[in-house]
Amino acid sequence: MTTLYLVSSGPGAADLVTPRARAAVEAATDLVAYGLYLDLLGEVCDGKTHHDLPLGEEIGRARLALDLAASGKTTALISSGDIGIYAMATLVFELLDLQLQGKENSPQWLAVEIEVVPGVSAMQAGASRIGAMLGHDFCTISLSDLLTPWETIEKRLHACGMGDFVVSFYNPKSKKRDWQINHARDILLQYRPPETPVLLGRQLTRADESITVITLAELDAKDVDMFTLVSVGNSESRHIANGQKEWVYTPRGYSKKL
Amino acid sequence: MTTLYLVSSGPGAADLVTPRARAAVEAATDLVAYGLYLDLLGEVCDGKTHHDLPLGEEIGRARLALDLAASGKTTALISSGDIGIYAMATLVFELLDLQLQGKENSPQWLAVEIEVVPGVSAMQAGASRIGAMLGHDFCTISLSDLLTPWETIEKRLHACGMGDFVVSFYNPKSKKRDWQINHARDILLQYRPPETPVLLGRQLTRADESITVITLAELDAKDVDMFTLVSVGNSESRHIANGQKEWVYTPRGYSKKL
Repeated sequence: MTTLYLVSSGPGAADLVTPRARAAVEAATDLVAYGLYLDLLGEVCDGKTHHDLPLGEEIGRARLALDLAASGKTTALISSGDIGIYAMATLVFELLDLQLQGKENSPQWLAVEIEVVPGVSAMQAGASRIGAMLGHDFCTISLSDLLTPWETIEKRLHACGMGDFVVSFYNPKSKKRDWQINHARDILLQYRPPETPVLLGRQLTRADESITVITLAELDAKDVDMFTLVSVGNSESRHIANGQKEWVYTPRGYSKKL
Repeated sequence: MTTLYLVSSGPGAADLVTPRARAAVEAATDLVAYGLYLDLLGEVCDGKTHHDLPLGEEIGRARLALDLAASGKTTALISSGDIGIYAMATLVFELLDLQLQGKENSPQWLAVEIEVVPGVSAMQAGASRIGAMLGHDFCTISLSDLLTPWETIEKRLHACGMGDFVVSFYNPKSKKRDWQINHARDILLQYRPPETPVLLGRQLTRADESITVITLAELDAKDVDMFTLVSVGNSESRHIANGQKEWVYTPRGYSKKL
């Protein structure tokens, strides 16, 4: 039985790749991933057969990984961040589920051993770079309405507002989708103050990283692209900036007990 | 200027500790952590001065770490999972914030350089062990009402239900708190089916790990303790168990497009 590793390569920095992820890549003969992710992983990818498909071909990429593993090749399918969070892992299980239901025609997939290797997601990298934004209850919402109806996303934005959750937006914008982030801002403004801190993180933990803290009222699609992590604080999140120190954190309320 | 590293040691397994976390512990002369976490980290802790305080002494532990660093000792404050998620990081920033406001009496803390090292949280470890539970929008809710009023927690449980978020409960139970998890179940049952899959993970990625998948209707405080991760699926999460395979995943909806 061959193994398909579903590998999280983390936010970008080499020293945030877990040893387990590195070992999984090392054990594989075949890698399925964007070229960029392999560049970040470095030498461990040398000598492996590299497979790629154009951006947007997620289903094809998951099939390819399952097919390679089913053909006897130890394979690693690699996503940045955590492969289990808005990434390729769930698609592999969706395909396997369809096969079990007889809706796919690839019984050989079921002989593949699947091993998922978790990793540090973008929201964690962003929070850690400037404090502790995720210090209390939080949620994540993907703003991509390619697969999820906008009504569902809107319902979740309202629920996030009502629950006063810190929220990290994944897929905030793409070339074809530019209005969702401003809609999300407007919904949250119904529930929390305009001065609520918002963290914008780009190319987190990489050489060209940029991190900016703005207010919810200032959040605008023009300052966000598909590589931007957007995390919005809850009504108690604090932005400290006194010229020397800059931190954003969400208190758990210990200070009330002091 | 000395550094206080806020270090995430991950869910437990040594190969899920990032190289950055290991390097931070290596750079420190003084470690502040539960003994158990140091056992999991292994040899890298040898020769360091180890400081500890009884369980529950979180504020004291954060103060101690800041004091040690302010006294010139490179210090690592260590939490399991991600130190930024329901852990010690936010408390350190809360204390620093109070100091900046003149409500603490430790100006020397402000000369300490703080570096947060993110890591793999329990919910990620749990999901990865058996599929991709976090494949779509999710939230986390701490069920501890020691610092957060129960009304706030209840409001978030309803918001989670309304938004149909996958949810991971942190601090689901302690010796003194045993009723919250059943209340949480009852609230979620108002919004999603009784057969919704629930993942119970204990001692995740460690030698005595146990993982069980039950239904939301079956969730009961008697099967949960303070070391248990409880993740509840959304209304579309799938539990596949056919004798040979067992997976839980939350689809993003790709299969609707196939």
